[in-house]
Amino acid sequence: MNRLFTVVNVLGKMILVFGLTMFIPLGVALWGDDGAQPVFEESIVITFSSGLVMWLATRRYHRELQIKDGFLLVVLVWSVLPAFAMLPLLFYLPELNLSMAYFEAVSGLTATGGTVLSGLDKLPPSINIWRGEIVWLGGMGLIVLAVAILPLLGVGGRQLLNAEIPGPMKENKLTPRIAETAKGLWSIYAGLTVMCAITYKWAGMEWFDAVMHAFTTLGLGGFSSHDASYGYWDSPLIESVAIIFMLIAGINFATHFLAWRGKNLIPYRYDSEVGWCVVIIFFSCFGLAFYLWFNNVYTEPLIALRYATFNIVSVATTTGYSNTDYSLWPMFAPLWMLFLSAFCSSSGSTGGGMKMIRVRILYQQVYREIVTLMHPNAVIPAKVGRSVLANRVIFSVLVFLFVYSASILLMALALTLSGLDAVTSFSAAVACINNLGPGLGGIGPATTYALLTDLQIWICSFAMLLGRLEFFTVLAIFVPAFWRK
Amino acid sequence: MNRLFTVVNVLGKMILVFGLTMFIPLGVALWGDDGAQPVFEESIVITFSSGLVMWLATRRYHRELQIKDGFLLVVLVWSVLPAFAMLPLLFYLPELNLSMAYFEAVSGLTATGGTVLSGLDKLPPSINIWRGEIVWLGGMGLIVLAVAILPLLGVGGRQLLNAEIPGPMKENKLTPRIAETAKGLWSIYAGLTVMCAITYKWAGMEWFDAVMHAFTTLGLGGFSSHDASYGYWDSPLIESVAIIFMLIAGINFATHFLAWRGKNLIPYRYDSEVGWCVVIIFFSCFGLAFYLWFNNVYTEPLIALRYATFNIVSVATTTGYSNTDYSLWPMFAPLWMLFLSAFCSSSGSTGGGMKMIRVRILYQQVYREIVTLMHPNAVIPAKVGRSVLANRVIFSVLVFLFVYSASILLMALALTLSGLDAVTSFSAAVACINNLGPGLGGIGPATTYALLTDLQIWICSFAMLLGRLEFFTVLAIFVPAFWRK
Ligand SMILES: [K+]
Ligand SMILES: [K+]
Repeated sequence: MNRLFTVVNVLGKMILVFGLTMFIPLGVALWGDDGAQPVFEESIVITFSSGLVMWLATRRYHRELQIKDGFLLVVLVWSVLPAFAMLPLLFYLPELNLSMAYFEAVSGLTATGGTVLSGLDKLPPSINIWRGEIVWLGGMGLIVLAVAILPLLGVGGRQLLNAEIPGPMKENKLTPRIAETAKGLWSIYAGLTVMCAITYKWAGMEWFDAVMHAFTTLGLGGFSSHDASYGYWDSPLIESVAIIFMLIAGINFATHFLAWRGKNLIPYRYDSEVGWCVVIIFFSCFGLAFYLWFNNVYTEPLIALRYATFNIVSVATTTGYSNTDYSLWPMFAPLWMLFLSAFCSSSGSTGGGMKMIRVRILYQQVYREIVTLMHPNAVIPAKVGRSVLANRVIFSVLVFLFVYSASILLMALALTLSGLDAVTSFSAAVACINNLGPGLGGIGPATTYALLTDLQIWICSFAMLLGRLEFFTVLAIFVPAFWRK
Repeated sequence: MNRLFTVVNVLGKMILVFGLTMFIPLGVALWGDDGAQPVFEESIVITFSSGLVMWLATRRYHRELQIKDGFLLVVLVWSVLPAFAMLPLLFYLPELNLSMAYFEAVSGLTATGGTVLSGLDKLPPSINIWRGEIVWLGGMGLIVLAVAILPLLGVGGRQLLNAEIPGPMKENKLTPRIAETAKGLWSIYAGLTVMCAITYKWAGMEWFDAVMHAFTTLGLGGFSSHDASYGYWDSPLIESVAIIFMLIAGINFATHFLAWRGKNLIPYRYDSEVGWCVVIIFFSCFGLAFYLWFNNVYTEPLIALRYATFNIVSVATTTGYSNTDYSLWPMFAPLWMLFLSAFCSSSGSTGGGMKMIRVRILYQQVYREIVTLMHPNAVIPAKVGRSVLANRVIFSVLVFLFVYSASILLMALALTLSGLDAVTSFSAAVACINNLGPGLGGIGPATTYALLTDLQIWICSFAMLLGRLEFFTVLAIFVPAFWRK
């Protein structure tokens, strides 16, 4: 239990900082006089006092964090922060119950972007900006998680991730250096967000929408302030801006960091994921545009290409925007898109799913297996890019895949058992575990998760956390050995 | 190309032997004067002459077989024999096109048991006995494949399979000893088939049905001579006999062999699969019976248990019989059954899917992964039963799982692309790759594969072969390196 107190001590401090971020929507509420001020004031008071109590009550357990603490901290951050993030929603919307409010907050902080809310256009701006902000904060936390913390914890072969990155990110302890790395990554993340917001404004959005969507574009979180998502503007220019920034946010931020520090583009060439992601998405856009045109969904090839491209990039990068209800397209189209969402983002990005690097390692391993079958004594090194992989890393990646597939299957079965139809169940499991957002059937891009029962909502919330924290972080704390000295 | 000729030489001899087996349905046709005699006569002539030509034309390439030859032979046997097995069907049923006839024959020889035929009750007995016989022959070939050939080829971690089996099965070359092993296995297989037929007769079947269903029970192939499958008899006694023999056929025949040779039951206790299979199936039966009763599908708990048990055992062992249209049950029930079909049979049985031993290894590896996360320097041996596994074997198993899942996904996507709905596509992919037979939606237990288009039929035929030959055997021959010297 001492471990729990040590970690709660850190968590308390993080909750205090998190409370500070609520002043932004409070400011928006005051400035626009949109009626949500009291809601944010109450939320800030509760968040601050909780954080303070947690921090002070556990002060004497303060010490440097160890590996096991890392697991626990990560799980607690992503499961406890939503309980505070949901407060403004819970207070402002009386029709929202606890399950739904927590779901919405988890969906934000895991950058999933599936929503239980409709009538978004009529919500106070401060509530919508808060929804966007938690996606953005979640994305920020995520980059650090993926680039600095998970590799230290060794989750799912994450050690590999930084094999090609020199310097501070390669340390082997949870040291203050993480803070330095984090600062560099965050500057880039924040800089890109500002650029994105300005470009959105230039392309035709209102300032408020530009900022809110810049938050959810860089976080790849898919929340919108309009029920119709990007269908609201129906503007190819705005969609192009979104496409560019979604692709940028789908790249490893460590690569952006190296490129920015070295002031050149070479790091992108040596990135072992970005090329594959771009090529697969590129061909999928043209292929699906042809398929839509061939099936008479759109009679104009260019219109088909526009809708195919925007929705594919959105789903493949696990953003979750849409500019039309693609769940009405012939079934292969949305299924292919869900398939892409499983592996088309890079590790170290704000995207979800298995990550391209793991798929490359798997591919490599299948090739090795076939060669070894024919030449049982051959020794073939496993290489991705310039790095030779240790068996340990390959094992982690293969086991990760197994746990990933098994989780999707078991979550889908659990949803079916609770009474949901097969297509909705499976697409919900995929959409939540990949942190994508919209699924198909009852939870398609034109609808929301609100039709689910409370139990189903909780299953989805758990699935989002599981996917976001890469399974093992969560599973580890359920193993009895974790709690032994 | 020399390799191809060497293998075709062996294949020619096998086709000659296969031609001999057609005398059984010919005899049935003559004895019952059911009108199918000319059809079998023509088929026998074509099969014999083809086999003879292949054998004689390649006689000078005869030599001892090597590993690569083994891959090629296995693929050719399972893809070329159906072209002869389908002849009687093609000749007798003018409405059957080539795609469908080949599908039916592949479905038989891979012991899948999905059919494109309806009006089974009105087919000549000789045609039905031939359908049963190819399942039985396929099952016989399969046991040798699984117990003796694949382990030598090292496919998908198959080396492990025989780790606990002493004697002839552990040789490391394709030697005549395989013939000895095969003989022992086949005697048991044949003996059990005779026992099964007699018990079916005793339980109330006609002799003809008893023999035909004994063929498909031991082969776990699911073909029936009645459109209603076991619903035709509506007899709990007959169903109980089927349940017992399906479970027996779902156990590793090498274990049966050891038990029979040693005249005791100890080998079953040391079998690392049978216990798990039985426990999972047992709890699934009671769980699903409760679920059906709870959802008011059956108001009598015992009736619910009867239907749950028969259909679960049938699907979990990948047999494919049914005594009711379980695709009409609430969705969780058939999905759970399809899920079980993926891993509830033993290696070395006539069942399909991943096999329980691989799942145990995966489970073991997940556990190792979690412990290693917490204690990065710990060395935990991977053990299943009393055997310690080499990394090489674990890699093979993990990669097998990846290829298995990816195949199901890609086959399902291909079927969706061809225009099939999502539930039918995914269940068809699962049912074909697991060599189960019936799926859900358009190809549920109450219907047939006949509604599929030719292209879809070919995709399914390929999926059955892929699953039956454990992927790598098939994939290997598509790799350019395979054909190099
Ligand atoms: K998302
Ligand atoms: K079967």
